[in-house]
Amino acid sequence: NFDPYNVFLAIATNIPQRLNTAFVVKGHILLLQSHFQIPPKDAKLWPYFQDGLRRIDYVLTYHVQKPQSTHKQSSKSCLCCGFKREQKNPPTHEDPELAAQEQRLDYHEDDQRLRREEFEENLREMGLEMEKEEGVSVGFLKIHAPWDVLCREAEFMKLKMPTIKKYEVSHGSSIAEKVNLFIQKVTAPLQPNVGENQTENEKPLSYPFSREKMYVILVLSLQILYEQWASYSIFYKYQPIGLVRKYFGEKVGLYFAWLGVYTQMLIPAAIVGVIVFLYGCATVDDNIPSMEVCDERNNITMCPMCDRACSYWKLVTACGTARASHLFDNAATVFFAIFMALWATMFMEHWKRRQMRLNYIWDLTSFEDAESHPRAEYEFHVMKKSLKKEQSPKYIFLLCSFVCSMQIFVTLAIVFGVVLYRVSIMTALHMSSTPTFRTNIRATVKTTAAIINLIIIIIMDEVYGAIARWLTIMEVPKTDKSFEERLIFKTFILKFANAFTPIVYLAFFRGRIIGRPGKYLYVMGSYRMEECAHAGCLMELCIQLCITMLGKQLIQNNLFEIGVPKLKKMLRQRKIDKKHQEELNKTLHRHEKDHFLGPFVGLNPEYMEMIIQFGMVTLFVASFPLAPLFALLNNVIEIRLDAKKFVTELRRPIAVRAKDIGIWYTLLRGISKVAVIVNAFVISFTSDFIPRLVYQHMYSADGTLHGFVNHTLSYFNVSHFQPGTEPMKPMHLGYKVEVCRYKDYRDPPWSATPYEFSREFWAILAARLAFVIVFQNVVMLMSDFVDWLIPDIPKDISIQIHKERNLVVELFMKEERGKKYRNTIGDPSPQPLCSHPSSQA
Amino acid sequence: NFDPYNVFLAIATNIPQRLNTAFVVKGHILLLQSHFQIPPKDAKLWPYFQDGLRRIDYVLTYHVQKPQSTHKQSSKSCLCCGFKREQKNPPTHEDPELAAQEQRLDYHEDDQRLRREEFEENLREMGLEMEKEEGVSVGFLKIHAPWDVLCREAEFMKLKMPTIKKYEVSHGSSIAEKVNLFIQKVTAPLQPNVGENQTENEKPLSYPFSREKMYVILVLSLQILYEQWASYSIFYKYQPIGLVRKYFGEKVGLYFAWLGVYTQMLIPAAIVGVIVFLYGCATVDDNIPSMEVCDERNNITMCPMCDRACSYWKLVTACGTARASHLFDNAATVFFAIFMALWATMFMEHWKRRQMRLNYIWDLTSFEDAESHPRAEYEFHVMKKSLKKEQSPKYIFLLCSFVCSMQIFVTLAIVFGVVLYRVSIMTALHMSSTPTFRTNIRATVKTTAAIINLIIIIIMDEVYGAIARWLTIMEVPKTDKSFEERLIFKTFILKFANAFTPIVYLAFFRGRIIGRPGKYLYVMGSYRMEECAHAGCLMELCIQLCITMLGKQLIQNNLFEIGVPKLKKMLRQRKIDKKHQEELNKTLHRHEKDHFLGPFVGLNPEYMEMIIQFGMVTLFVASFPLAPLFALLNNVIEIRLDAKKFVTELRRPIAVRAKDIGIWYTLLRGISKVAVIVNAFVISFTSDFIPRLVYQHMYSADGTLHGFVNHTLSYFNVSHFQPGTEPMKPMHLGYKVEVCRYKDYRDPPWSATPYEFSREFWAILAARLAFVIVFQNVVMLMSDFVDWLIPDIPKDISIQIHKERNLVVELFMKEERGKKYRNTIGDPSPQPLCSHPSSQA
Repeated sequence: NFDPYNVFLAIATNIPQRLNTAFVVKGHILLLQSHFQIPPKDAKLWPYFQDGLRRIDYVLTYHVQKPQSTHKQSSKSCLCCGFKREQKNPPTHEDPELAAQEQRLDYHEDDQRLRREEFEENLREMGLEMEKEEGVSVGFLKIHAPWDVLCREAEFMKLKMPTIKKYEVSHGSSIAEKVNLFIQKVTAPLQPNVGENQTENEKPLSYPFSREKMYVILVLSLQILYEQWASYSIFYKYQPIGLVRKYFGEKVGLYFAWLGVYTQMLIPAAIVGVIVFLYGCATVDDNIPSMEVCDERNNITMCPMCDRACSYWKLVTACGTARASHLFDNAATVFFAIFMALWATMFMEHWKRRQMRLNYIWDLTSFEDAESHPRAEYEFHVMKKSLKKEQSPKYIFLLCSFVCSMQIFVTLAIVFGVVLYRVSIMTALHMSSTPTFRTNIRATVKTTAAIINLIIIIIMDEVYGAIARWLTIMEVPKTDKSFEERLIFKTFILKFANAFTPIVYLAFFRGRIIGRPGKYLYVMGSYRMEECAHAGCLMELCIQLCITMLGKQLIQNNLFEIGVPKLKKMLRQRKIDKKHQEELNKTLHRHEKDHFLGPFVGLNPEYMEMIIQFGMVTLFVASFPLAPLFALLNNVIEIRLDAKKFVTELRRPIAVRAKDIGIWYTLLRGISKVAVIVNAFVISFTSDFIPRLVYQHMYSADGTLHGFVNHTLSYFNVSHFQPGTEPMKPMHLGYKVEVCRYKDYRDPPWSATPYEFSREFWAILAARLAFVIVFQNVVMLMSDFVDWLIPDIPKDISIQIHKERNLVVELFMKEERGKKYRNTIGDPSPQPLCSHPSSQA
Repeated sequence: NFDPYNVFLAIATNIPQRLNTAFVVKGHILLLQSHFQIPPKDAKLWPYFQDGLRRIDYVLTYHVQKPQSTHKQSSKSCLCCGFKREQKNPPTHEDPELAAQEQRLDYHEDDQRLRREEFEENLREMGLEMEKEEGVSVGFLKIHAPWDVLCREAEFMKLKMPTIKKYEVSHGSSIAEKVNLFIQKVTAPLQPNVGENQTENEKPLSYPFSREKMYVILVLSLQILYEQWASYSIFYKYQPIGLVRKYFGEKVGLYFAWLGVYTQMLIPAAIVGVIVFLYGCATVDDNIPSMEVCDERNNITMCPMCDRACSYWKLVTACGTARASHLFDNAATVFFAIFMALWATMFMEHWKRRQMRLNYIWDLTSFEDAESHPRAEYEFHVMKKSLKKEQSPKYIFLLCSFVCSMQIFVTLAIVFGVVLYRVSIMTALHMSSTPTFRTNIRATVKTTAAIINLIIIIIMDEVYGAIARWLTIMEVPKTDKSFEERLIFKTFILKFANAFTPIVYLAFFRGRIIGRPGKYLYVMGSYRMEECAHAGCLMELCIQLCITMLGKQLIQNNLFEIGVPKLKKMLRQRKIDKKHQEELNKTLHRHEKDHFLGPFVGLNPEYMEMIIQFGMVTLFVASFPLAPLFALLNNVIEIRLDAKKFVTELRRPIAVRAKDIGIWYTLLRGISKVAVIVNAFVISFTSDFIPRLVYQHMYSADGTLHGFVNHTLSYFNVSHFQPGTEPMKPMHLGYKVEVCRYKDYRDPPWSATPYEFSREFWAILAARLAFVIVFQNVVMLMSDFVDWLIPDIPKDISIQIHKERNLVVELFMKEERGKKYRNTIGDPSPQPLCSHPSSQA
């Protein structure tokens, strides 16, 4: 009653790591048992050796070419020594892209055959049993891991395995237990139907694997995963994480668990976000500033928006924008920004606890990440370097920094290009269009600009991904782990800069560096920098965020995650076995079918997508409270989409043990730290929150916002226009304008210091900065407090760990006494007790 | 060749924890072999049992009274059940103070005897051997742990022990190795002479303890510690941390290692601090603002410093203060504040690496902190509670919060009291003193106030310590660990508030809430709040910091750490054995002598002292660059002082295993985070750095500081004094004053808005706030970057760990093959290999 597969899964990574997989220079490891087990009536299709007894645990595939004559005798001895070195530090690579890239390392075919043979010899020495099968172009090496090899490996890894002894899991006091039971009952329909939840009150006692103990059986089947996980119809249910982990390994299990926690945590954020938005909708009619803007009686004449072509305009025409702005710029926004900062901390804490719980349930508590082994590429690089002269790593580092800076420069250039597009189109439209058309100009330009931004972001995303990979390969990092970390880091920097530069421009630079009437700032000769609409740039920031989030998710999900893989699959099938396809399809072996599935390229793209989304949700949430809702809707689909992909479309990934989500956690933490300061700046500088507050408490006569709009507008004497910039149609409004207004805090033309920043400007600037300091530090303090308040290890888990440890102590002591007793009565069978040094010396 | 003591030390804590030490209600565990081993010629004094063969490992002591009749038969059965429960969760307490406090729990003497007997029975069942010796008032229970018990425990704990197999430790590339060798040669005279450093190139391979392996011997002697560690004459040498750990256990070893790293890191900080100070000294004559103040030709008349008694004064009289201020308030200060923020991060990182290195050297890498067991007091409390009705823990929590707030309120009140003292004395002196005496008034008052503050701080420190302990005892935390953490946390809050409230007042509140001439702020009826001297409050902050640091360290070191323990020792010796003392002194057994030493009360006071010092060094370093130097001088002495105390004056503490310094690290991190924001505020608000900068770039005609002093002074029309507050001697300076000056940015009396905050005020405020934001975020970013840049595990250690792991794999595989071979040729002796489930089912 012991499932060898269970052990095998856990040690699966260990065997190829400890052995030398440099063998698979052009092939890849193919894990069997993927996708729907076939009943064992047809022995030919069932993954067994020819004898029908020994089960296939692993299949290695490699490309076969016609054997050539060994024309280089000298290369053999050299390979042998190279091999010996690699035997000590065996590299792995499960990444087929890397394998493909390696084609350029010009190994000869016969060298490969020799290497393969040595490798197989090594496998045999490890105790593994093998069967070979060579087809037209692909060879399969089937491997069976016998029982005692599995046992040895498990014991060596001190693998914690469930023992027969079970113990009851307490749920604290009686009240807590009742609450727990109630919650269990309520969430019962949300639980996946995998027959695993019944025994939650009992947990098998885990103890490092030892050959003397017996274990319980744990059966799993992919069919359940397909029905209870990879289906859109059960989107409201929890995921069967335990099964996912058993089938795909801990690393994949942790990804889906993380995605689940994130999606779950988005629910309250989305609800609060919607409430904040609805609050904005409900109070739009009571909002004094927008009422003042819309009031026809406040006959305010504004200065022209562009040189010559534009003329004076009445503030009342900005009524619509002012009302819309209120939806996103009201008192509730500040509350929501604080809420989301704390939400991010809560999410991190919640995930830490969930991870700890999973570690406990999966018996990973005492698992230590093994040091990675050097990659084959690194070994090759070192070998090559010792042949040539030393190539300085400084050169690579400089190249890397240069390319990265270039990329960020390109991103900035693109943003600037879009700005120019907007400015020039605006001016052109102003000049030629009819008045009725002109009212729609702004909206049109904004939306097209946002869409152009989006398209550029999506294209550059792919480009940057490729560049980051290329740079990392150039660096030749020593281990797989450092390769992955460097790749992730570079990709993250580039993609993040790509996604957020246009948004940062809109939030903090747009409309701030325009100069003032009579002394505007010009770029590229004659283009004036863009102004914001009257009520600040928040509105445009919203539109950009909305389009980026929706568009990115829709296009990337549909096109890249569904469309492209299907296309690839079709291409692969057509290329390889076009003629035999139909006839072979029925008689194909399990491993042959699996061979035609798409390769598993790692979890990094999935994580990266989610982390950019997390950035959207937290970084600019002060300006777009609906972001969590959008993210939630996307993720509910994303989970099932990914699940489907894993279950039906990809080769089964090699199970990798992991205790945590690694560098991604660091990145998440970094984003939620940056989010605090970004939101502080959005509230105090992008929104009109602080000016309103200062007006109410320092300048307003009656403590209300009446007169606020007038207070924010400065005066400009139209005789001070620079020659050639005054409007062509000064009588456009039907009367002669002598003084027009513009949004800024500057002294009026009749003061001693005309057009200088006024005392109000400095007072409001001080208030804005003070708000940033207070907000940042208060929120950081609260986050730290929440972090400190919530224990990293859930209470019940720590109690259970304690209980388990006590039980192990008890078992151990009992065994000891038994041994001693047997010793005393003269039973000769057990091993001798530790003997005293004096008797040995 | 195996030193049982070595194993024993490591498991020393485990045995009393797993057994029931509730026994020692009034006694304490006394660890033997402390202080100078006596050669074994005199068997009576050597720590052996009467048979002279079995060595004494542990001695438990308890108070003896005349046996009473067992008058309560019912209590026995009750105790039994209580005992059984405690057997499962056995509490420990090594703290004699707690034991003393427990006297109030009214156990009867005969109950205690019964408990002791049951406890001894348990010890015997564990396999320990005992010998009893009851004196007049003290009983000793000597315990010998036989070889196989030690082995069993060590195996159970998976104790990593050095094996015979050694391997060479590589030092990276050849250049790195040469540099290392060079460093070793240079630092050779700094190494303690303990004969341990020769074999640094080899390290014994460690592997979890198993009875089948043999170990190398490691001998240690206290004499070496006394000579090479606890001596002032070798203050410049490194500490022999390895020996300290072997003798006192990991926890004490880590404390001294930490103290060593901290002291070492203080050296560069002290050097840079002195350079910054010297820079101030060197540039004092080129400083334009102080030159302007000292220039007699700038005939500036200042407004009076107090009502009526004081008169107008000339700015030139503040010349000395202005020049002195420059020493601590110059451009280098900003650089030093940034340097110290990064220094704090470097220190934390450096410590993390050192800790990791020690973990590796001490074979703690796979050691997991065991869950603590409930304390005896907690068990007793729960028992009592179940007898009574449930007493709400909310009540305790409220009490605790209330007392803590009260304490902080008391601290504030004291600070306010000192302020009042200063204000009233100043006024009184002004009124009565002769002009010659008056010039020294300020300095006198400042210094006496600082000394009063210091005395109050030292007294309240002791009071707060006692209160925190009392509160924590009231809370009845469940485990020793949580007891300690709560105690530390409370003590930290109270002592920190106590030490820093006067300093915070001086830095941020003094001179800021004074109002303006004609509209001063009054407290307690007629006292005007204190003004700062012309050049800001930085000078006074310096004096306060200097006196607090010097005084606190001198008084606490000399009086509390040397004087009080000696006094206590004298009292103890006189009380217990006054009459027999001399005659017994020669014939006393080892354990009897140890019994008269002072008890070990934990490391918390030592850590607390250092952490307050760390606060002084980092928090206000912008205002006092000499702080690191003072701290360094203190710590060089502190290390040897503590060492002496541990070696000669205290009972040997029970060895406690620990991987890290626990909550102290969290507190250090917290302080270094707070330090960034505090320093940002000190630079921007307490010093005149920002006003100088703004003046130079916005208002100065020629970009220099000429005219700065005039710019900082506002005008006041003396006819606007409130009636009754004008000076009594308006002609004091010899001419009639119509307009006097005061330090603030306000509109002049002749403007449209007289005495309102001027545009300059708001501009400078905005600049100050912007500086805080920039400084905080830049420094935090740099700190995070440094944190990220320096790997937590030193490179050579990670290489060695990897190497060690590979060697273990090799050993294991070799053993496996050996086993299999023996199996094949039919050797019956080894245990059977793991058998296949099919053969067992």
